[in-house]
Amino acid sequence: MRTRFQMGLDELKERLLTMGGLAELAVDRAVEAYRLRDIVLCRQVFDGEQTINRAERGIDGLAIDLLAMQQPMAVDLRFITAVMKINADLERVGDQAVNIAERVIDMNAYPQVELPVDIPRMAGIVSGMVRRALEAFIHAKADVAEAVLKMDNVVDEMNREAFIALANKMHDSPEGTRQALDTLLIVRNLERVADHATNIAEDVIFWVRGKDVRHLGPEADLDRASAPPQEPTAT
Amino acid sequence: MRTRFQMGLDELKERLLTMGGLAELAVDRAVEAYRLRDIVLCRQVFDGEQTINRAERGIDGLAIDLLAMQQPMAVDLRFITAVMKINADLERVGDQAVNIAERVIDMNAYPQVELPVDIPRMAGIVSGMVRRALEAFIHAKADVAEAVLKMDNVVDEMNREAFIALANKMHDSPEGTRQALDTLLIVRNLERVADHATNIAEDVIFWVRGKDVRHLGPEADLDRASAPPQEPTAT
Repeated sequence: MRTRFQMGLDELKERLLTMGGLAELAVDRAVEAYRLRDIVLCRQVFDGEQTINRAERGIDGLAIDLLAMQQPMAVDLRFITAVMKINADLERVGDQAVNIAERVIDMNAYPQVELPVDIPRMAGIVSGMVRRALEAFIHAKADVAEAVLKMDNVVDEMNREAFIALANKMHDSPEGTRQALDTLLIVRNLERVADHATNIAEDVIFWVRGKDVRHLGPEADLDRASAPPQEPTAT
Repeated sequence: MRTRFQMGLDELKERLLTMGGLAELAVDRAVEAYRLRDIVLCRQVFDGEQTINRAERGIDGLAIDLLAMQQPMAVDLRFITAVMKINADLERVGDQAVNIAERVIDMNAYPQVELPVDIPRMAGIVSGMVRRALEAFIHAKADVAEAVLKMDNVVDEMNREAFIALANKMHDSPEGTRQALDTLLIVRNLERVADHATNIAEDVIFWVRGKDVRHLGPEADLDRASAPPQEPTAT
């Protein structure tokens, strides 16, 4: 029979997955709004922000309550604190969706121009990173998390290319400057989503590998206990 | 006499302040690098990133060790988890400094042009926000944290103005497009620093107000216990 504490951990995991779904939906909607120049979708993204913020606070509260409920083992402590970090990242993924929707609204005041950047493609990769990072967390798979870190390099490269392509476009066709600028900022927002996925992946790696030190008791050397098994990738 | 746990809490607070100092120094250096177009300062920012990342992991580890050390009271739980969140924000402030330094290096390949935006002034406000948010945390002052939230509106407004001014500049003088773009991205990076200060301020408000529910035991209703006293400002 599962204890109340264990059921709390299950609920925490489930709520985090729901949170991930909300954040992903927000990004998908924002990118669809960009593709279709759809103001209604933008409004849905704005409305969804409060839901995401409430979900974040709820998860945080549950995590703190679980920490207070009993003396958790090191492995549970790491799990709960990983959830709190991932939760914060997911909330900020939602913020990026809002930023994208704001750019779409700004763009809508200007004529549509052809731009040398494929936002839906970049968004597809970035959403995949968030999904895989959460998957890595759910199944405690450090190798899946490491694959996410590699995908971040692809996004960084797309970001660099977009910057140069859009800078050239603005230089050559100043009449499309505003739309190109908005699109550049959307590229940056997507890059930030990728950064959050990377943060989540790093937390998963730290959490999974941290399991190896689960037997460290309160008397263990603090610095040794706190050092991650390897230098994390810089974010 | 202070217990080992209480001394750990003191050390946690002290390390977080050091972390805040490192993050602030990184931003100051990056902005100075922008002002002087100084590549040496950029390199110092890059070198400092690893130090910040190590400090972040050290604080996280200490926080987890403290959680494992004894059954902390709700007030201590909230403090420790607030430290972990603030810690993550400070690390990302450092990331923004790196992003700014990268933009400065990109700009250096192009002739210097007059641009309609005052980066050092914006940076001054933004650094002040980080400093005050940490001050609010150290002294557990929700009103100081609320002042930080208000400053964020000023930064958002500067950001909006900079976007329009730089878009017009690019439109009218395409030869300065690249430099204007880099500067726009620096504006965005500073805005993100302000967002992190806002996150910290929100955590402080939640933490300080959360003290009022310190007597909630393990049997308290989870949802009620986890609900913040008031709707937090959307980030």
